[in-house]
Amino acid sequence: MKTLAERVIACCRELATFTEEPGSTTRTFLSLPMQDVHHALRVWMERLGMRVSVDAAGNLRGIRRLCASRKNYRQASRRLLIASHLDTVPNAGAFDGILGVVLGIALVEALADQCPDLMLEVIGFSEEEGVKFGVPFIGSRALVGTLDHALINSGVGHAIRAFGLDPADIPKARLTPDTIGYLEFHIEQGPVLESLGFPLGIVDAIAGQSRLMFTFTGAANHAGTTPMNLRRDAIAAAAEWIGCVEALAGNTPGLVATTGSISVEPNATNVIAGLVRATLDIRHPLDETREAALNQLTTSAEQICQRRGITLAREQRLNQAAVSMNPHLTGLLTQAVTDAGFPIHRIISGAGHDAMIIAPHVPAAMLFLRSPGGVSHHPDESVITEDVAAALEVGLKFIYLLEAAHV
Amino acid sequence: MKTLAERVIACCRELATFTEEPGSTTRTFLSLPMQDVHHALRVWMERLGMRVSVDAAGNLRGIRRLCASRKNYRQASRRLLIASHLDTVPNAGAFDGILGVVLGIALVEALADQCPDLMLEVIGFSEEEGVKFGVPFIGSRALVGTLDHALINSGVGHAIRAFGLDPADIPKARLTPDTIGYLEFHIEQGPVLESLGFPLGIVDAIAGQSRLMFTFTGAANHAGTTPMNLRRDAIAAAAEWIGCVEALAGNTPGLVATTGSISVEPNATNVIAGLVRATLDIRHPLDETREAALNQLTTSAEQICQRRGITLAREQRLNQAAVSMNPHLTGLLTQAVTDAGFPIHRIISGAGHDAMIIAPHVPAAMLFLRSPGGVSHHPDESVITEDVAAALEVGLKFIYLLEAAHV
Repeated sequence: MKTLAERVIACCRELATFTEEPGSTTRTFLSLPMQDVHHALRVWMERLGMRVSVDAAGNLRGIRRLCASRKNYRQASRRLLIASHLDTVPNAGAFDGILGVVLGIALVEALADQCPDLMLEVIGFSEEEGVKFGVPFIGSRALVGTLDHALINSGVGHAIRAFGLDPADIPKARLTPDTIGYLEFHIEQGPVLESLGFPLGIVDAIAGQSRLMFTFTGAANHAGTTPMNLRRDAIAAAAEWIGCVEALAGNTPGLVATTGSISVEPNATNVIAGLVRATLDIRHPLDETREAALNQLTTSAEQICQRRGITLAREQRLNQAAVSMNPHLTGLLTQAVTDAGFPIHRIISGAGHDAMIIAPHVPAAMLFLRSPGGVSHHPDESVITEDVAAALEVGLKFIYLLEAAHV
Repeated sequence: MKTLAERVIACCRELATFTEEPGSTTRTFLSLPMQDVHHALRVWMERLGMRVSVDAAGNLRGIRRLCASRKNYRQASRRLLIASHLDTVPNAGAFDGILGVVLGIALVEALADQCPDLMLEVIGFSEEEGVKFGVPFIGSRALVGTLDHALINSGVGHAIRAFGLDPADIPKARLTPDTIGYLEFHIEQGPVLESLGFPLGIVDAIAGQSRLMFTFTGAANHAGTTPMNLRRDAIAAAAEWIGCVEALAGNTPGLVATTGSISVEPNATNVIAGLVRATLDIRHPLDETREAALNQLTTSAEQICQRRGITLAREQRLNQAAVSMNPHLTGLLTQAVTDAGFPIHRIISGAGHDAMIIAPHVPAAMLFLRSPGGVSHHPDESVITEDVAAALEVGLKFIYLLEAAHV
């Protein structure tokens, strides 16, 4: 399994050279380098006897349905999807998303002439990161029928046609009724597994998240001539509130809350800030905890602003409920990890994933691989060969457990 | 005096239309609209019998030395400079700087055929704001001989030649030995006089100031997958420190300290900030108090960063000692304000002014005019007609007090 794991990693690293930006890895929805990725993976899948197509949302799909060496072959009546995404953020690493697709193909290769009674479909989603159109999950949303007409009629439809596909065929990309499960491998993108010394983590749920913009409007004024008590300093107000954000998240188990972006006007050394826009990204596995925390932080901001003579505006930009993975499939995955001899750690995903889109429609499970240094969305993103081998081993065991489970 | 005050204001408003940016007032060092300002003021000064020239640093200089109506006229042996600057910040108001020049000319007009035994020289400095070359006080520094060769040989010299002047003549712009005083009228650019209900303020000193850049380097990471206790969040660190800046200034009389500019990397909603650059502008009339405060804020930043696993870098960009106005001249100015029937308020200027450059070389005094709303460096900048009339009245009394003082 170690040799195959090494090939998986080498494959991901090679595919990372297919980029819109020479010298770094940037591959957005249906860009030219995405064609090269499709071509490379198609060659591999066809060599394994898979039937390969690209659906109208630009998802690369490979189906293993024949098992030439099995004498009494019959078409499997149940389908397992193994999927993740092929697009990247700008200046990305080599593993976020695409590792889950390459692992799916490697599992088909590892099965060799074994023929579990499951149709395996490996999917490389065209779009998860939301870089090109500011809208994430275009690939997986096509499978569950939630790509709306307004989106398709926008630049997305144009990009689909430019890629040689027909947006009118998007309904054909829908999940088929024989689909009984969805499995996604993904790097953790966080430091938890590494801090525990565990190679794998079993995802229980994907945290709900809200994203907002808080705008603090004070009064720009001269930094030298305006006494402290006569200021309406938007930076000072925002800074006080950012302290509240950090403190509340620190005191609320499972809550993460982040101000990651700040813009200031006029943003001059010698001028008191008149306006600050500060973002809030807040996530928790329980929607009610997230909503209560958001209310509390809004109240904090209001109180800070009232005391300082500052005007507050709040704009919600994302409000996404938590999504649980399927308990039965997650149980099978836990069994597979145990059978393979690895320690069990159940984890909440703080990041959104395609599994979140699929889970309301098909039983879904997710396996995280340890992220060295917790690094992701960065060229330094990496995986450990032994962890990839562990994931392959667990994947094989999961396939047989699912086959036996008569779901 | 009210009619003359109204003309002063109308003149400033008209000169504000001489701009590099149609629709707003922007007039940098030796720009084309500066020529128009020179022309307009030259016409007025020559009508008053003044001898007008432009020195090699681009300063407009008008000398009243003849007093035709006085029978026994003799050349005055002592010279009083009345000066301020003609350049502006981008999108400026109509009064910052130029009001002090127009008031100087208006005082010559108000003297009419009165002949105090003082040579009056009105100077419109070419550059105070530092917009064009990032170097302030080019005009006044020519008078005291601190324009260094490196600066002149840079773009400044080129701009001087383009304006039809010869940088080699800059030494001729130096102060003459007969100069016994310097008087600068300027808008307060702050809310203090307005909050007191006073038209005028007598400047005791110009606060010393330091400007620094503090850089907080943490680790950019995923906002959803990085637990609060494993973060090295540069925004959270900077926000905590900004709270210290505000608190220390609030508790230290006379201290103003401002973070006016923040830049964040990567500055994305869903990414913990890896790097924040935050400026510090800190001012106090006592240099030792400013330096102690700066040391304390540096220590605070170091402690915050150490606790959070953040790297701190500190870069000093300006370190300017406080400058006192001349006590004798300031005493005469106080007497003039009292004689004119206005209340006395001694004030520390938090902003730098040309008087700060001149004061170490010639006795200098400064009179502030109330800034409605405390607004400056903004198109809404204004002055009150009665305050301008008050300044004219005080200016005339000051001239006679200085004449009588035998300085």
